[in-house]
Amino acid sequence: MTLHRIVLGMIIGITLTATTAVRAEPIVTERHQVSLHTITDELNKPWGMAFLPTGDLLITEKAGTLRKVSLDGTISAPIPGVPAVVDAGQGGLLDVAVDPDFATNRWIYLSYSEADPAGGNGSSTAVMRAKLTDSGLQDGTVVFRAIPKYDRAAHFGSRLVFSPDGHLFITLGDRFTAKDDAQTLDSHHGKVVRILPDGSIPADNPFINTPGALPEIWSYGHRNVQGAAIHPTTGELWTAEHGPKGGDEINIPAAGKNYGWPVATYGVNYDDTIISERTHVEGTEQPHYYWVPSIAISNIMFYTGDQFPAWQGDLFVAALKGSQIARLDLEGERVMHEETLFADDIKQRIRDIEQGPDGYIYLITDDRAGRLIQIKPAS
Amino acid sequence: MTLHRIVLGMIIGITLTATTAVRAEPIVTERHQVSLHTITDELNKPWGMAFLPTGDLLITEKAGTLRKVSLDGTISAPIPGVPAVVDAGQGGLLDVAVDPDFATNRWIYLSYSEADPAGGNGSSTAVMRAKLTDSGLQDGTVVFRAIPKYDRAAHFGSRLVFSPDGHLFITLGDRFTAKDDAQTLDSHHGKVVRILPDGSIPADNPFINTPGALPEIWSYGHRNVQGAAIHPTTGELWTAEHGPKGGDEINIPAAGKNYGWPVATYGVNYDDTIISERTHVEGTEQPHYYWVPSIAISNIMFYTGDQFPAWQGDLFVAALKGSQIARLDLEGERVMHEETLFADDIKQRIRDIEQGPDGYIYLITDDRAGRLIQIKPAS
Repeated sequence: MTLHRIVLGMIIGITLTATTAVRAEPIVTERHQVSLHTITDELNKPWGMAFLPTGDLLITEKAGTLRKVSLDGTISAPIPGVPAVVDAGQGGLLDVAVDPDFATNRWIYLSYSEADPAGGNGSSTAVMRAKLTDSGLQDGTVVFRAIPKYDRAAHFGSRLVFSPDGHLFITLGDRFTAKDDAQTLDSHHGKVVRILPDGSIPADNPFINTPGALPEIWSYGHRNVQGAAIHPTTGELWTAEHGPKGGDEINIPAAGKNYGWPVATYGVNYDDTIISERTHVEGTEQPHYYWVPSIAISNIMFYTGDQFPAWQGDLFVAALKGSQIARLDLEGERVMHEETLFADDIKQRIRDIEQGPDGYIYLITDDRAGRLIQIKPAS
Repeated sequence: MTLHRIVLGMIIGITLTATTAVRAEPIVTERHQVSLHTITDELNKPWGMAFLPTGDLLITEKAGTLRKVSLDGTISAPIPGVPAVVDAGQGGLLDVAVDPDFATNRWIYLSYSEADPAGGNGSSTAVMRAKLTDSGLQDGTVVFRAIPKYDRAAHFGSRLVFSPDGHLFITLGDRFTAKDDAQTLDSHHGKVVRILPDGSIPADNPFINTPGALPEIWSYGHRNVQGAAIHPTTGELWTAEHGPKGGDEINIPAAGKNYGWPVATYGVNYDDTIISERTHVEGTEQPHYYWVPSIAISNIMFYTGDQFPAWQGDLFVAALKGSQIARLDLEGERVMHEETLFADDIKQRIRDIEQGPDGYIYLITDDRAGRLIQIKPAS
């Protein structure tokens, strides 16, 4: 199997050296004409990706494999040393992040649904840190483990992003049936947590001195946060979370704040009736922006590159539903405009979006023939 | 003709005492289920409306008639005393406003395209103030007259709104072919102006001491401002303007600020190519919110009533294109969400939107069988 993938990867590397355009003609958007190029369609339900300083990508596949993918389409064999994951429902191997000091310390971070070490059917989100070496991951340590475990395969979050001051944010889900956990501080579910890269707790975390509260918690009242990015000028964390039907949210989670789920929501029932009249509840924060109906946000990305000058500073919101990207034109932090990109051009759910060191934009699609797509200016 | 209309109005008044639902079934929106009722469809290209303290409406018809319309569907004969208008293209009798102290002073205000008093084919936007009496308008005086006149039947603006401190804002257009006038202070075109109700100039207007500048000017760099409303808590003026193709804007015009047209715009050409790369030009303000493609905004309204509690504080943006209303859910001044209302329910261009003293929402449609529509909670 491994050999098969290596050989397959070599073939792909050869046949796709010139990448394949998804559509031949340029796609006209409001501010740029672009083209989409498939670098590979040989990924098996990829979930997260992160660029290495070499310009190669690390890409997770949900079933539990981590691969290095080059922009010429070469896909590595599975990298050894990945933790065991519970590949069920929405769980599995999820996000990957590269340490800001990777060039010197070689640390990478993986989020995943982890079986209960004590046995049983429960699982929850965990984060492993390990060193990426030529022979695989080494020195793997679990630096975060969400509690409690639940026997439920939904709403694990989870994105991993580093703040400019070196903290690791981990975004989590409410585990669906345990949604009330989002409002209690003795559970990690429905939270954004903030740790130091070695798993220790920052001394200025908001609940570190609150009796009964888990010290990793940064913000709470979230549903299922699968998108996260750092604003390029403010340095603040921005997150995206799935609503039920409707109520997908962008938030700018501040230390110790409650973002309302499930006591306040813009989400509605699947028959379009209202879940709750309460969109505003005292002590909870309004979303920064929201969608009804849901677009099912996977990840978000601020664009800062030179390839698309008119998109600089904009927030790109990748969506599973409609295979679209919402471009939010921001003035400061304020949304001035939303453009829907690629609604007719990509026929797979978009699972992650990242800016490359080359200034192009990269997508992965959530499919057993999952694609890595490169967005370039149309030539 | 007048008698015909009176008789017709009486008949309508009888037949429509129970208003006619545009659609039988309730319309499900995100936060409220509503029904639309046609109070009358006997208006001839209505343009502006304003509620009198009695609960009746004054409604302008573009060709030059002003009528009183009751909510039982009774339409009055034309009210005598309306100024002569140039009914051509986008020009004619435009907006109507009722003085905040109408109950004691009986003043109303009409904006319209006025022929050049000196002769010739030129016209421009003017505003008359007159007293509404049982025998028609009396003591009519032109309190504002835009200069220069142009022989062009496009982009007159114009909405009339009173600020809480008693100033009258008049929103104007760039006269289309004279768009560069929007950037010069020696012309009223492409401006928002601010006067006292008698036409005198407020002592704190921003350009009152600027040599060569017209003292009525409040803000500049606008294209064609046909929407205006006062924010219910800040008391600030909000405006809406038409872009070319794309670039319809909401602005919060501040004293002396330049809103960029035509040097900066999000509008695009009709073949979707870019007019200008310049959306940001130093010294000009970004829009508060914008649309690409255009929805062709007619008027805007903040909802503050009790009939639709979940809509309180929202901005309703009526559009000619698509016969839609955009509901902007605001948190403070920030747009959190946009909902499109009634895209399939009203098959005429929506020309004005107002909240009634009863808390219902009223629309007029721009048609020779123009309708007055009442929006109520679905029973």
